[in-house]
Amino acid sequence: MVFTTLKGIAASNGIAIAKAYHLVEPDLSFQKKKIDNPKLEADRFRKCVKQANDQLEIVRNHALKKLGEDKAAIFDAHLLILNDPEVIKPIEEKILSEKVNAEAALVETTDNFITIFESMDNEYMRERAADIRDVRKRVLAELLNVAIPNPSLINEEVIIVAEDLTPSDTAQLNRQYVKGFTTDIGGRTSHSAIMARSLEIPAVVGAKTVTKDIKHGDLLILDGLTGEVHVNPPEEVIDHYKKKQLQYKKQLEEWAKLVDKPSISKDGVRVELVANIGTPNDVSSALEHGAEGVGLFRTEFLYMGRDELPTEEEQFEAYRTVLEEMKNRPVVVRTLDIGGDKKLPYLPLPEEMNPFLGFRAIRLCLDRTDIFRTQLRALLRASVYGNLKIMFPMIATLDEFRNAKKIFLEEKEKLVKEGIKVSRTIELGIMVEIPSTAVLADQFAKEVDFFSIGTNDLIQYTMAADRMNERVSYLYQPYNPSILRLIKMVIDASHKQGKWTGMCGEMAGDENAIPLLLGLGLDEFSMSATSILKARSFIKELSKADMEKLAAEALQKSTIEEVMELVQEIVKTNQFSIN
Amino acid sequence: MVFTTLKGIAASNGIAIAKAYHLVEPDLSFQKKKIDNPKLEADRFRKCVKQANDQLEIVRNHALKKLGEDKAAIFDAHLLILNDPEVIKPIEEKILSEKVNAEAALVETTDNFITIFESMDNEYMRERAADIRDVRKRVLAELLNVAIPNPSLINEEVIIVAEDLTPSDTAQLNRQYVKGFTTDIGGRTSHSAIMARSLEIPAVVGAKTVTKDIKHGDLLILDGLTGEVHVNPPEEVIDHYKKKQLQYKKQLEEWAKLVDKPSISKDGVRVELVANIGTPNDVSSALEHGAEGVGLFRTEFLYMGRDELPTEEEQFEAYRTVLEEMKNRPVVVRTLDIGGDKKLPYLPLPEEMNPFLGFRAIRLCLDRTDIFRTQLRALLRASVYGNLKIMFPMIATLDEFRNAKKIFLEEKEKLVKEGIKVSRTIELGIMVEIPSTAVLADQFAKEVDFFSIGTNDLIQYTMAADRMNERVSYLYQPYNPSILRLIKMVIDASHKQGKWTGMCGEMAGDENAIPLLLGLGLDEFSMSATSILKARSFIKELSKADMEKLAAEALQKSTIEEVMELVQEIVKTNQFSIN
Repeated sequence: MVFTTLKGIAASNGIAIAKAYHLVEPDLSFQKKKIDNPKLEADRFRKCVKQANDQLEIVRNHALKKLGEDKAAIFDAHLLILNDPEVIKPIEEKILSEKVNAEAALVETTDNFITIFESMDNEYMRERAADIRDVRKRVLAELLNVAIPNPSLINEEVIIVAEDLTPSDTAQLNRQYVKGFTTDIGGRTSHSAIMARSLEIPAVVGAKTVTKDIKHGDLLILDGLTGEVHVNPPEEVIDHYKKKQLQYKKQLEEWAKLVDKPSISKDGVRVELVANIGTPNDVSSALEHGAEGVGLFRTEFLYMGRDELPTEEEQFEAYRTVLEEMKNRPVVVRTLDIGGDKKLPYLPLPEEMNPFLGFRAIRLCLDRTDIFRTQLRALLRASVYGNLKIMFPMIATLDEFRNAKKIFLEEKEKLVKEGIKVSRTIELGIMVEIPSTAVLADQFAKEVDFFSIGTNDLIQYTMAADRMNERVSYLYQPYNPSILRLIKMVIDASHKQGKWTGMCGEMAGDENAIPLLLGLGLDEFSMSATSILKARSFIKELSKADMEKLAAEALQKSTIEEVMELVQEIVKTNQFSIN
Repeated sequence: MVFTTLKGIAASNGIAIAKAYHLVEPDLSFQKKKIDNPKLEADRFRKCVKQANDQLEIVRNHALKKLGEDKAAIFDAHLLILNDPEVIKPIEEKILSEKVNAEAALVETTDNFITIFESMDNEYMRERAADIRDVRKRVLAELLNVAIPNPSLINEEVIIVAEDLTPSDTAQLNRQYVKGFTTDIGGRTSHSAIMARSLEIPAVVGAKTVTKDIKHGDLLILDGLTGEVHVNPPEEVIDHYKKKQLQYKKQLEEWAKLVDKPSISKDGVRVELVANIGTPNDVSSALEHGAEGVGLFRTEFLYMGRDELPTEEEQFEAYRTVLEEMKNRPVVVRTLDIGGDKKLPYLPLPEEMNPFLGFRAIRLCLDRTDIFRTQLRALLRASVYGNLKIMFPMIATLDEFRNAKKIFLEEKEKLVKEGIKVSRTIELGIMVEIPSTAVLADQFAKEVDFFSIGTNDLIQYTMAADRMNERVSYLYQPYNPSILRLIKMVIDASHKQGKWTGMCGEMAGDENAIPLLLGLGLDEFSMSATSILKARSFIKELSKADMEKLAAEALQKSTIEEVMELVQEIVKTNQFSIN
């Protein structure tokens, strides 16, 4: 029982102390073999599909109860696959025609689907490949009569140790017993990390050797704030972390008190902390976490996972729901941001050599104005149910904004003529995620009502580095002074015209960025709902005047390292000292 | 004989008046058929390959005499294909084993190669596909006993009218008789357009219907300045163009007088007009056209079209040749810019989703320092033979420059220790082609010796639009005020530190850009050799003080259209009025 410390990526805040629970991948190996009675084998296959289906329904219902409709949806997708004759039939046919065992027929047939989907260079289709893998695993386990580890059966406090967690795994986690998890692989934005934050349990991912270096039953301290995993720690270390844990709990209680409070700096300057949401289901969590509005309502969910374009009516219902539930709080809706790596099965686009520099978002909408007009009509009709603002993604030139606005005004006029009520005060803004738009922000500011800086893309284009490409990921530098300068250009330009600037990229919720952004004068910070209270608490401790000095200094630095050094001082001094 | 005017893309300057010569694609259709004596058929095939080979050698020698080694090299590539057993043998085998006629065996076998190469998403390999097509056409014509049109036999003054011109076609053009050409397809940067500029004959490409609307023998006026093709013009139009032609000829003579003159604005400000070169063979043309130096010596030719990395010795020879031939004129060498869409067969790189945002140029060199060090050693050794400056491509952060410089200094020190002479005054600069670097130019200017703005990439990243992607080509806007602002940041930053800024993208030689760039304070304009004298003459007519006002105004515009309007005034007023 040697005391060791492993280091991974801090993926979800909090501290857990509990025994290690090894979530081991089951052994699903088998031999391909000829069988004498293929009809009997096909029957066996169908029976196992049925069993997998039953099991999956249990998992789905569990997820629905514990995690909400949004997260449970993944199991609906799995159930669809299990009941899709285009998937199941070829497997049965293979058993019958080739007289092979069901295991071999299942794996070989689904391998085809997986290969095709994975080669598609398209996030959406690759996710479908992951779904098929997950479903196949269930059926194969039934065929081999092997138990799949069932995290929902855990009945004592544990920290899960696994190579990685699948969507099925995380959906079965019972927060009462599962106090945290740590994995060998993954990063801050991998599926398991996102789920951990949404479940609000601490997690350390990408720790490389946890399944090797930790034994089932070892005592663990999981520090989701620093990314450390202590294995079999001595009493004094446990005591230290129990204190830290208590401190963190108190901190959470402190934060919870801020849920209905405004976001105000130490020297009395107010900013807005709002939430990024992906579907109407996310509204309740946003409100629970103290969101003062929605800074980014992504509308892609309306278009994805289906066979045809959503109707105006379907869209209207979704927009109205969010606007009503948010009461009169501002809701910034981003118009369709499809293309690039996000594709729709019913909207075939030509293959592109560099999809991130291609035909996407507003570029597509200004070409397919039929799609764009339908969305704008739905938004206009919903506008009377709340405080709607609309923003266009990937604007690179003023002409694009003018064209988009023109189409918006045309649809507005049509609706008015049709006697349909629309709000007269809808603000029209743009995402600033292309360098040209940041550089020309002073010209844009004369015509738009607001800016929302999309840092994920802005950084990618400004540094000419695909953020998905590991070989150039060292260039994805949010704190590079060049990025800070572009942000400043945008904010200054908006203020000069009496307009406001928000930010809806990952950066807005990052504690290292908040001091800088406050200092640069950002008006609205849009982030994951679960980050809002922490950010509000942090901002309370910061003096805007001081942060202005900090930002001015950062703008004169020449590398990201120098900027980080400056900021770390502030973060360490000002923030709740749990690190 | 109706007088009509067709409009295409002005691809090469000048005016031609002559009869139309239809360069018709030969009918190379055939039937696939079984043959009785495959051995005889294989003999016939070999004979035709031999004949095609002889013919190709004639074309190659003609090209060598008329166009120079560089342009003739394409036929060496064709000869290599014709003599490559890996291409020829499978065709013979197909004839023998499948007992099909040689025509079918040839086309079906080469189709495989072409399909593979064309699907490779890589400019270099796609060019190989075009080469195979060209070679196949020759052999097929021999097999079918069909004459391939032979432009080298033309013995009266003509303007060639064709769907498109292949490399073989253009290499056979005799400037004595071929006064110009016009094609249905192609653009300013297609192969035929580039060849026309290099041959200095007028050309109008992409005119869509010239092969349909023009008859063999029709009288044509080809206006390579406006892109107009007049068919069967009346006497007075001919007279008008004869005057224009004379005017243009005089203009060329005027320009020729500037070959040894410095480049000085009307109000006495000197700038440098230098050439972009791709191989040492380009030096003589650069000097003939009055280049004051080389602003961009691309070094990729050393690495391409071969099976292994070039040795230090090979590189040294190439660099020394250029430095010696340029006497003491400055020669800016760009270190290896491979990756992205430019790949090397012997340097396998992982497939990337967005190669333009990927692992390329300096990113690759800082990883494969073995390759980088060899190039730097070769450059250092060559540095004593002339006035060498080195620049690193795709620099995004100051750290990258610092690392590259560190490696450079290490190699320099090693050479000095080895007793090898190196220049003590080599300037080290960077390409500014990534937005972050332009935005942070003031910090870079403290450490680099010079900047060279690479507009092709800078525009692409700043607008987030792949310049090869037709669907977003409308966003490739060199005159967008955001681009001009970035250029200004770079130039101002360099001057503040007593450094200089050049430009080596397409923009530097563009007559619409020159007034703006002069006004923004650009020190060095690097362009195609054939554009230099025209640019020098143009700059003589421009007052830098006036252009500064023009540029200041352009920086405050909000769209490319507004900027173009401003500039067109200047171009029209100041320039030789041939348009």
